[in-house]
Amino acid sequence: MNMGLLGFGVVGRGVYDLTADRDDMFVKKVVCLEDVQLPDAEVTKDFNSILTDESIDTVVEAMGGLHPAYEFVRASIEAGKNVVTSNKALVATFYDELIPLAKEKGVLFRCTAAVGGGIGWLSELERARRIQTLEQVGGIMNGTCNYILDSMTRLDLGYDEALSQAQALGYAEANPTTDVEGIDTWHKVILSSNIAFGISVDTDSVPAAGISRITAGDVKNFKEHGYVCKLISTGMMKDGKLSAFVQPTLCPAGSLEAAVPANYNLITLVGSASGRMSFYGQGAGRYPTAYNVMQDCADVLAGKGFYSPYGGKVSAENAVELRYYVRGGSDAWLDAQTAEHWNDAVITKPVPVNEMHKWLKAHSDAFIAALPQE
Amino acid sequence: MNMGLLGFGVVGRGVYDLTADRDDMFVKKVVCLEDVQLPDAEVTKDFNSILTDESIDTVVEAMGGLHPAYEFVRASIEAGKNVVTSNKALVATFYDELIPLAKEKGVLFRCTAAVGGGIGWLSELERARRIQTLEQVGGIMNGTCNYILDSMTRLDLGYDEALSQAQALGYAEANPTTDVEGIDTWHKVILSSNIAFGISVDTDSVPAAGISRITAGDVKNFKEHGYVCKLISTGMMKDGKLSAFVQPTLCPAGSLEAAVPANYNLITLVGSASGRMSFYGQGAGRYPTAYNVMQDCADVLAGKGFYSPYGGKVSAENAVELRYYVRGGSDAWLDAQTAEHWNDAVITKPVPVNEMHKWLKAHSDAFIAALPQE
Repeated sequence: MNMGLLGFGVVGRGVYDLTADRDDMFVKKVVCLEDVQLPDAEVTKDFNSILTDESIDTVVEAMGGLHPAYEFVRASIEAGKNVVTSNKALVATFYDELIPLAKEKGVLFRCTAAVGGGIGWLSELERARRIQTLEQVGGIMNGTCNYILDSMTRLDLGYDEALSQAQALGYAEANPTTDVEGIDTWHKVILSSNIAFGISVDTDSVPAAGISRITAGDVKNFKEHGYVCKLISTGMMKDGKLSAFVQPTLCPAGSLEAAVPANYNLITLVGSASGRMSFYGQGAGRYPTAYNVMQDCADVLAGKGFYSPYGGKVSAENAVELRYYVRGGSDAWLDAQTAEHWNDAVITKPVPVNEMHKWLKAHSDAFIAALPQE
Repeated sequence: MNMGLLGFGVVGRGVYDLTADRDDMFVKKVVCLEDVQLPDAEVTKDFNSILTDESIDTVVEAMGGLHPAYEFVRASIEAGKNVVTSNKALVATFYDELIPLAKEKGVLFRCTAAVGGGIGWLSELERARRIQTLEQVGGIMNGTCNYILDSMTRLDLGYDEALSQAQALGYAEANPTTDVEGIDTWHKVILSSNIAFGISVDTDSVPAAGISRITAGDVKNFKEHGYVCKLISTGMMKDGKLSAFVQPTLCPAGSLEAAVPANYNLITLVGSASGRMSFYGQGAGRYPTAYNVMQDCADVLAGKGFYSPYGGKVSAENAVELRYYVRGGSDAWLDAQTAEHWNDAVITKPVPVNEMHKWLKAHSDAFIAALPQE
């Protein structure tokens, strides 16, 4: 396999390193805007140099962001090159377009590293579907949020302090919005649901609530009631109806989710034959992520593409009802839903997920967290 | 694929059920000593009926036990049939013989369901080795022991009471020796090490200590020091030296291992690129185990065999030093190793694993548990 590598940051460099000493995969060219010297690969600023190089059969996209990653990936597929990408935003956003295009052009397209970093999650979903029906997917998919929530729980830090610490350690970006508002997790649960259920989820139908409004007081409240708060994604297919959402969720102390430390991920599937299976590992980082890019390349070498059968567009109904912890944003609707109080917060009666998220959008001072399903 | 199914107990029946409605795998004949009527398969008491049936390409062994499972599997391979088995004792014991024989005869041989039941653990090891070097494997591999230890920890039951409850629920056999003395886990860590490190572990070099001597007093002792006891297996390759052993191990409260409930398994690998990855699921049970038998059949259909490269025989040195909790069996050696006391028990200085297990063999009244590596 002759690879053209787009991007030479955390993941790109990792892929380059992991191809060293292999006799089946070679990085021939690297597109990188900085001046880098590599002993075994040509470094160029010009993507067309890869596109027109007929000896390059596989393009590995490790740039991140939507543009120009989208244009480069699309052009690569159209030029008949296989594509391996770790870019969750790209694949979640252009799933409808890129998957059929890859099929039409007869190239292989894989994106395992886009969800779960070092965890071979999307490959496992593909594998699971050979034998069973998947009923539910989701879990802790964002290491930044887990790091912040874990620090707040174990070290009794406030949100700002925990975020600063995560930034100092490189676990959070200077602008942490994509992670802490649940957008990263939102991309990941959309992509996971697409593959698990063989559909294309209407992204607008999937609500996401983040963790940026959580306070030390909330965490204290949770501890008093035997809970640990985690940012949890859920994709569920029941009786042909899809539910998909991202929200802070209270996990019983002593549960597997509650035990996930630092920036680790724990992602779970429920299948008709296997029951619950969970996968734990590094959700990000150079070598864990590059590891799954390399696994995808090994699968491309073995002739394995992705994502079939590919079904139609499906909207999440999110009619499933959950109880919620709500702090702030008191109004008549919330009063009507209130079942009990935890100090200054409200515990609601079971409320449809969509209704709760709509209410949250209108109350920018409120923080919500779902209680476990009963 | 036309399958000959050996055994129609928990797993065999599950495999038969999961082939219903498939158009790529058919159970043609079932060897079963009881009188069973099946709509879609011939039931026979005579294994030769499968062996001589040229339309049967794959034999699925779900009988358990060493004999006649070994003779049947060997004969099947020699007759040019692929073999899928869930029998850990068989594969761990005859690895050296069956793997080369399958290669010689050009048939595919898989045994994913032998370790971890519903968890695709052995397949994952095979997959991981395509990209990285595995450094360590192991974890909670026996649901019976985990159920007993979990009940003792969460419900403060004594050992006998917890065992009786596990037996009443079908999680432990009437004669629980294979599970509670660590023999089942011993087979599983041998097999995992074989595949992870590409070797054939000398089974005599792998010590196993079980949980049958643990008391409610021990569990109380652990809780006071912030630990939860689990039966943990370890296979480790460092600087070309193998360590492999099974023993009760103290896991910090709040750790992932400590959170594993009831009869679940949690199995972990540490790889040079991925770092730590753990896999959680049902370690036994009809459909979880049959699920991985079916996954193996799907891989056989895709032409995927197992276990290469296959290296030579390797003995575990177990020179790695750990601190141990030891209750009972006081003598001069133990006095010399003692670092501190937890009530009536001793905490040793770091002691080589082999030395501790040798001592334990001579002290049938003692219970040991390893402390976490520092």
